Amino acid sequence: MKILKIIKIGGNIIDNEDALSSFLDTFAAIESPKILIHGGGKLATQLANQLGLEVKMIDGRRITDKATLDLITMVYAGKINKNIVAQLQSRNCNAIGFSGADGNTIVSKKRPVKTVDFGFVGDVEKVNTEILQVLLEHKLTPVFCALTHDKKGQLLNTNADTIASELAIGFADQYQTELYYCFEKNGVLSDVNDEDSVIKQITTQTYQRLIDDNIIADGMLPKLNNCIHAIEKNVHKVCIGKSEMLYDAAANFTTITK
Amino acid sequence: MKILKIIKIGGNIIDNEDALSSFLDTFAAIESPKILIHGGGKLATQLANQLGLEVKMIDGRRITDKATLDLITMVYAGKINKNIVAQLQSRNCNAIGFSGADGNTIVSKKRPVKTVDFGFVGDVEKVNTEILQVLLEHKLTPVFCALTHDKKGQLLNTNADTIASELAIGFADQYQTELYYCFEKNGVLSDVNDEDSVIKQITTQTYQRLIDDNIIADGMLPKLNNCIHAIEKNVHKVCIGKSEMLYDAAANFTTITK
Repeated sequence: MKILKIIKIGGNIIDNEDALSSFLDTFAAIESPKILIHGGGKLATQLANQLGLEVKMIDGRRITDKATLDLITMVYAGKINKNIVAQLQSRNCNAIGFSGADGNTIVSKKRPVKTVDFGFVGDVEKVNTEILQVLLEHKLTPVFCALTHDKKGQLLNTNADTIASELAIGFADQYQTELYYCFEKNGVLSDVNDEDSVIKQITTQTYQRLIDDNIIADGMLPKLNNCIHAIEKNVHKVCIGKSEMLYDAAANFTTITK
Repeated sequence: MKILKIIKIGGNIIDNEDALSSFLDTFAAIESPKILIHGGGKLATQLANQLGLEVKMIDGRRITDKATLDLITMVYAGKINKNIVAQLQSRNCNAIGFSGADGNTIVSKKRPVKTVDFGFVGDVEKVNTEILQVLLEHKLTPVFCALTHDKKGQLLNTNADTIASELAIGFADQYQTELYYCFEKNGVLSDVNDEDSVIKQITTQTYQRLIDDNIIADGMLPKLNNCIHAIEKNVHKVCIGKSEMLYDAAANFTTITK
């Protein structure tokens, strides 16, 4: 089976021009088929401040009202996505930008209102890989922003980590899929204050013990749940760490396998 | 030869929610392969005002500085493009959004500085139809915003009429291409104050006479030059008028042929 690398980057790369440029050099040089997923970084908040848009939070979680969705669509699908695509093109990587609405690639459902109405936030229901598969075969590189749609005309703000894992799962029967979460730390740490305490290997078996022993910090849990879910759905491996892990096998990072 | 319809819409449709919805109904119902190109409408100017961005004009022409390009990228490629794509998806039209950077489909060159530096404005140099052709064969519908790139990492603001004609020309050897410019008037008028004075048919021969006789108004000249250029490059026909022309052959509009 051919390898497909699905790589997610977050604010620590997107918000820093030099870090982004250096990451895109690395990404463009990857020879196997690949897909990039990017979050939004601080740009959306900056623009919201410029426009005097109020950031609405309930229980510490951001609410996506209509104005915020419009803003996110402009920043994620517009400015960030198109600039990444143009920069990859200059590196001879034939990138093509996507939201989940494009080609109906990711269909989600507006999160049901229980105690909190999160607004225009979508939980992924279905990934359609057919057209992406055709593009990959033609050596194109899809670049996804963190927006999906409900197939009824509504765009929805969707967690970029989840988009990455759902895409990896969607391709798991056609490719040996490898999922990479690039973030600001060296990996999953056993001591959150010690960058050198990277847990190099996690399996579905050892994962439960790490949770039972309270070794994994709260902030890592949603990310790791995404990873374990992907592994259980036949994604070949998930790696978490700094983007150096993409080219330096000796780098410190966490690998999750079955 | 199969027919390919390439349809451009402007501000009169984009700026009006009902007009856009009604147009998208019509567009989605077109059975032949099709491509949509949209301009920007008033949204970019509105956002510029909200952000306190100065609109720079020289000799009555807008200058695209860095801040304006960012704003256009957010509005055209983000908000307008993704909302059109999502709305077409809800009408079972498998739309996929494009700037010219995506898939390296439209390469342009920053307009050289002569007397005026227009800033980040691109003149189209090359259209790459291969990947679009693959998508059309898979029944996808590309939706283009008015942005291209220089293949060196720079996005460029590009005239939407020109993008439409260059795409039509690019496909002229693979399809019987029909180019439709939807705008606020019934067509090319022989009397600019009389909506009923539509010139129904223009050919490359009669065009020169219309110019010599001063019958075509100044504002129409750039649009018509685009059309005639397309016809000379083997586009099958170009139609100019209200969007009714897309489904009502009896409607009043202008057809340009060889």
